[in-house]
Amino acid sequence: MGGARNILLLSSSRLHGHGLLEHARGQLEDLFKSCNVKTVLFVPYALRDHDRYTATIQDALKPWGFDVEGLHTKPDREKALREAQAVFVGGGNTFVLLRSLYEMKLLDPIRELVLQQGLPYVGSSAGTNVATRSIHTTNDMPVAYPPSFEALALVPFNINPHYLDPEVGSRHKGETRDERLEEFVAYHGLPVLGLREGTSVRVQGGKATLLGDRNAKLFKVNGGTEELAPQADLSFLLQN
Amino acid sequence: MGGARNILLLSSSRLHGHGLLEHARGQLEDLFKSCNVKTVLFVPYALRDHDRYTATIQDALKPWGFDVEGLHTKPDREKALREAQAVFVGGGNTFVLLRSLYEMKLLDPIRELVLQQGLPYVGSSAGTNVATRSIHTTNDMPVAYPPSFEALALVPFNINPHYLDPEVGSRHKGETRDERLEEFVAYHGLPVLGLREGTSVRVQGGKATLLGDRNAKLFKVNGGTEELAPQADLSFLLQN
Ligand SMILES: [Ca+2]
Ligand SMILES: [Ca+2]
Repeated sequence: MGGARNILLLSSSRLHGHGLLEHARGQLEDLFKSCNVKTVLFVPYALRDHDRYTATIQDALKPWGFDVEGLHTKPDREKALREAQAVFVGGGNTFVLLRSLYEMKLLDPIRELVLQQGLPYVGSSAGTNVATRSIHTTNDMPVAYPPSFEALALVPFNINPHYLDPEVGSRHKGETRDERLEEFVAYHGLPVLGLREGTSVRVQGGKATLLGDRNAKLFKVNGGTEELAPQADLSFLLQN
Repeated sequence: MGGARNILLLSSSRLHGHGLLEHARGQLEDLFKSCNVKTVLFVPYALRDHDRYTATIQDALKPWGFDVEGLHTKPDREKALREAQAVFVGGGNTFVLLRSLYEMKLLDPIRELVLQQGLPYVGSSAGTNVATRSIHTTNDMPVAYPPSFEALALVPFNINPHYLDPEVGSRHKGETRDERLEEFVAYHGLPVLGLREGTSVRVQGGKATLLGDRNAKLFKVNGGTEELAPQADLSFLLQN
């Protein structure tokens, strides 16, 4: 399963000091050009204004030579997905996004197209959360109740996008991000990859690689953590 | 409905520079002494180690003259609740807590005892979230999937505990707390009370008051916000 995978999962669409998606331009170009992608089908459901969101992505990708169409403008969404050259699921609220995908019955079609047909998939933030096995490790506020937290499972592990190191000397008494992720690991016995902003996971078939110029932090099943360097081979995370 | 209410909802059990619950000692003593409470029934399900959690709360309250028993040690939980002098629902993970309450079928009994019989209810953090109409405004990571986000509805509005003002000059691109709460308001058309650490909401029948020495921040249905001063009358939030 997943031998056809051609996936790019971004921690975030924005990085401090860069324009929208600018930090990932090379990664997006590599993926799209290798598949001769001219038009990207954008999934805008994580935010409320689908037209505006799609236009924003179009403004970012158009100068690099890629057209963007919004899935919400298509009368037959399954058909649009089947005919797409690549799909890009944008960030926003993970709960809202996953509920929308369930309501529109889009999980099975997307999963099959990506895993069996090799449809290129790009996710960012919430779009990365829904690409993993579940949304149990989203940072978002649960403003919507989806029928399940199980997601696309394009990869068999969890990712925490926008991963942020605990703030030294904080006086705040809420849990740190690390405590939250350790809580997930303790309850589920599964690993989580903390993806710092500016980094991405590239999956090609059975091979996964860490992209970007910062480390990722892996929260391991035994309770420990491990820093993974840029270009690290993450394929072992696909073995579950 | 709710004329019997005798409720104290804490933002957090810890405040920087204070021992566990120390910042709320006066508030707890006022509530417990006014009802002649000697023993508090503690609900430890938001954390994993119920014995240790209960012992920690016992260690905090015992020196002030209150005994603590864990609901998890009672063979008949509904009976224990009916016979309780006061109930204290501790913080931890809101999703885990709410799922436990659903699994044990404790929501209806607690709701009825608090609203009809005037059972004193203290909540802290996650225990405050589940006391409100829903857990849509928790900060916690969704490590467990409860059968609903609807909660005890002891008060008809939402609270965001550990409310934290947006950090000035942050380079992080995840949403700020304010953006997350505005997202909730936009989707639900309902107000949220942002409770900074060290503050509480005291409800007596139809009257609600802000306790502690910091403001609370109200996220209003029209999208605006309002700072509410210590001792502010919050009764208008009970009118929904
Ligand atoms: Ca988000
Ligand atoms: Ca918590």
